[in-house]
Amino acid sequence: MTVTLHVCITCRAGLPVLEGEPVPGARLHDALAAQGAPAGVRIVPVECLSACSNGAAIALSAPGRWTYVYGGMSAEDAPDILAGAGAYAGTSDGIVPWRERVTIFRKRSLARIPPIG
Amino acid sequence: MTVTLHVCITCRAGLPVLEGEPVPGARLHDALAAQGAPAGVRIVPVECLSACSNGAAIALSAPGRWTYVYGGMSAEDAPDILAGAGAYAGTSDGIVPWRERVTIFRKRSLARIPPIG
Repeated sequence: MTVTLHVCITCRAGLPVLEGEPVPGARLHDALAAQGAPAGVRIVPVECLSACSNGAAIALSAPGRWTYVYGGMSAEDAPDILAGAGAYAGTSDGIVPWRERVTIFRKRSLARIPPIG
Repeated sequence: MTVTLHVCITCRAGLPVLEGEPVPGARLHDALAAQGAPAGVRIVPVECLSACSNGAAIALSAPGRWTYVYGGMSAEDAPDILAGAGAYAGTSDGIVPWRERVTIFRKRSLARIPPIG
């Protein structure tokens, strides 16, 4: 089953934005798209994840799995985000064992939500 | 359709906990349960929503709707939380118009996640 990596493309991450420059969320999305999603992951841009004071924010979700939201992400984190998303896709319930979890996901959790239904 | 109000019952909300005293998340859950869920809402306790530095945390979710996570909640907020959950249950997509949203939901959003699927 394909899991979804939502990326907030309107996130300013609390920083001033120069006119004409892409916001941090958009740069993060572009970096992720450029590197390409691992097997079982689709990258989906979204306008505002309502985590504005903790951006840039991303979310991992799929039917029947725990949803995870992470903040404080930047374009430089793209390789780790994709590795973490791939590990999430490899689980049945969304719970990656703690020791196998990428460090940025261990340290920058904003929330997790039980499977919906 | 019934929507789910998840309540983190292990949340310490960054406060010291006296031995034998219930943690803030448990007190919030008890206050919500005592007042009773509005029509179309079920209250479900959960151990850790991974929003520990922004607790006490709750989440509203249902199939086909946006999920919302809120932080900084306490037992005193129970009436407003239940009013907000009822408004969420009354929508088809989970998006309550901004002006109809309870103030604590306007001000204490941790994240929202698009419908899963």
